[in-house]
Amino acid sequence: MTIDRPLPLDSGQQLASVTIAYQSYGTLNADRSNAVLVCHALTGDQYVACDHPTTGKPGWWARMVGPGKPIDTDRYFVLCANVLGSCMGTSGPATVDPATGAPFGMGFPVITIADMVRAQAMLLDHLGIARLHAVVGGSMGGMQALAWASAYPERLVSAIVIASAARHSAQNIAFHEVGRQAIMADPDWQGGQYYAAHAPTKGLAVARMAAHITYLSEAGLTEKFGRRLQARDAKSFGFDADFQVESYLRYQGLAFTDRFDANAYLYITRAMDYFDLAEAHGGRLAAAFAGAGDVRFTLVSFDTDWLYPTAESRRIVQALQSVGAAASFVELSAPFGHDSFLLDVPALDRLVAGALRNGG
Amino acid sequence: MTIDRPLPLDSGQQLASVTIAYQSYGTLNADRSNAVLVCHALTGDQYVACDHPTTGKPGWWARMVGPGKPIDTDRYFVLCANVLGSCMGTSGPATVDPATGAPFGMGFPVITIADMVRAQAMLLDHLGIARLHAVVGGSMGGMQALAWASAYPERLVSAIVIASAARHSAQNIAFHEVGRQAIMADPDWQGGQYYAAHAPTKGLAVARMAAHITYLSEAGLTEKFGRRLQARDAKSFGFDADFQVESYLRYQGLAFTDRFDANAYLYITRAMDYFDLAEAHGGRLAAAFAGAGDVRFTLVSFDTDWLYPTAESRRIVQALQSVGAAASFVELSAPFGHDSFLLDVPALDRLVAGALRNGG
Repeated sequence: MTIDRPLPLDSGQQLASVTIAYQSYGTLNADRSNAVLVCHALTGDQYVACDHPTTGKPGWWARMVGPGKPIDTDRYFVLCANVLGSCMGTSGPATVDPATGAPFGMGFPVITIADMVRAQAMLLDHLGIARLHAVVGGSMGGMQALAWASAYPERLVSAIVIASAARHSAQNIAFHEVGRQAIMADPDWQGGQYYAAHAPTKGLAVARMAAHITYLSEAGLTEKFGRRLQARDAKSFGFDADFQVESYLRYQGLAFTDRFDANAYLYITRAMDYFDLAEAHGGRLAAAFAGAGDVRFTLVSFDTDWLYPTAESRRIVQALQSVGAAASFVELSAPFGHDSFLLDVPALDRLVAGALRNGG
Repeated sequence: MTIDRPLPLDSGQQLASVTIAYQSYGTLNADRSNAVLVCHALTGDQYVACDHPTTGKPGWWARMVGPGKPIDTDRYFVLCANVLGSCMGTSGPATVDPATGAPFGMGFPVITIADMVRAQAMLLDHLGIARLHAVVGGSMGGMQALAWASAYPERLVSAIVIASAARHSAQNIAFHEVGRQAIMADPDWQGGQYYAAHAPTKGLAVARMAAHITYLSEAGLTEKFGRRLQARDAKSFGFDADFQVESYLRYQGLAFTDRFDANAYLYITRAMDYFDLAEAHGGRLAAAFAGAGDVRFTLVSFDTDWLYPTAESRRIVQALQSVGAAASFVELSAPFGHDSFLLDVPALDRLVAGALRNGG
């Protein structure tokens, strides 16, 4: 869907028009009160509950969204839009700039989490949805949910924020910077103007490998791989992938380059690094939620998530409670690290289902 | 110093002759009983207490080694040798292969921590030192100290193992694999035959950046950098280093390429990943220390070190105690993460000084 209105951006620039690619699941009810917006993470997309068109794999949260699932498409009208700056149909650096007829590349304006949310609000306007039953997201999706609660609290009944943060830490920024430098170090990157030639797949794969480690827990990696070798039963005394964990990471890096644009990775990681909800409020996080006293919040963290650890969720809950918002918080135990929000954690399913029922 | 004897390697290959570059500090006493071998970490070298010839910076452990320092060169004859596979004078991939007249490159045999220690033992033989008052090392240096205790316990009075591990975990291997892939993805790497052309500095810098994050604690990064911006006081809405932590990491990556060889980085990380002292003993770590019952061990970990965490040191201590070795263990509190062993931690100074006095 293309919205032919300008989208103002936090940078001061604007996009003359913006395309927002989205998927919907379920049916909007007569009083338009059952819409649930699912916000995706860094490398996610709108294919939350249907097969991915490139990889053919099931939706990234198919276990959570669908008929009879915790986010029940028999009850809710579920929307998921590809974020601004991404590469699955929504305007981003790979999009053709109407002004030049060539892909934006690094000419695309740098965007923020608030810009992503502003674009989503335009989509809701377009669809005639004044208010969401809930906004739900994990990781960067949770950042969007928090930004929604800050910017448009009157449009939310409830917000569900999973394994997320209200700001990127120095360590978070550092890991992203490694990924960006890996991409920019690839000579195929060519300052972002690679669309007519080879994409910087090697750099993007390295970026993905580094990030992927941060999505898993140390204990989870040990349990899944330990020091187990590949099929051959001895060390090669070479530089092939001897260990299963090496082979796994190489595969994760390579597979990612089939479905993701390197420039989009640069832009979205930048948006995450810039994210600090308190910044515009003199560093006081509570002030960012000043208008959100009537929104019902559910926050969830995982005990093995070292990317966005429990302490950060607790800090958000304190800020919410200080403005009188109803904010429930649970730290779940799961072995998968940050990726727990995407994986088989039945307690999370129950929490999300319950939060949606209570939200209305 | 070149030793014109073949060095047998764990891979089954051998080096026909081996050069070992080392520095010594202090004076060997008449009964040759005051030698202390300091083993360096991944990117360290023999310049433990004197200025580095390339960077001009003070020795990497100048705060620990010197006259009146905890490793007191007025009392001890301190040796530090560049490890096998490295690039500061000891035989490694950048060394000229006498058989071809060209640098070994990837033709250098893959080496192990035990191979490094075997080369150090040859150096001690050459110097007429039958027994060490102590072997001391942090990080990969600690792995060498443990390998010494396993292979040559009769040659040790004591071993001091700081912020180290008896095996590389899946997460440790994963981070190293990211670094190796970053180097190998750099087209300047050219299969390791870059010595006559441009070195793969971009890939090596990315590898260093990724590794560097693992050397610091999350809290330490937050304290040191937080989300502070560079001198300019606003976000650039671009991809320059806006945050101080980005600028710091870029500098760390770049500076590293001035003093280190990319192939050496591949070989030494491989040796660390292969390290698992228990492997040759049916997985029983205690069996690796079967002959070390008379060695006095001091192990130190740091509470903020997530690379080689305290639990791993505890596991080693249990194995040592089960073979009757005297093993003392302390977890120190320090904010610097893994790098604490190199930094200003007065309690570590006191521990090392005390362990050396008690060792004799």
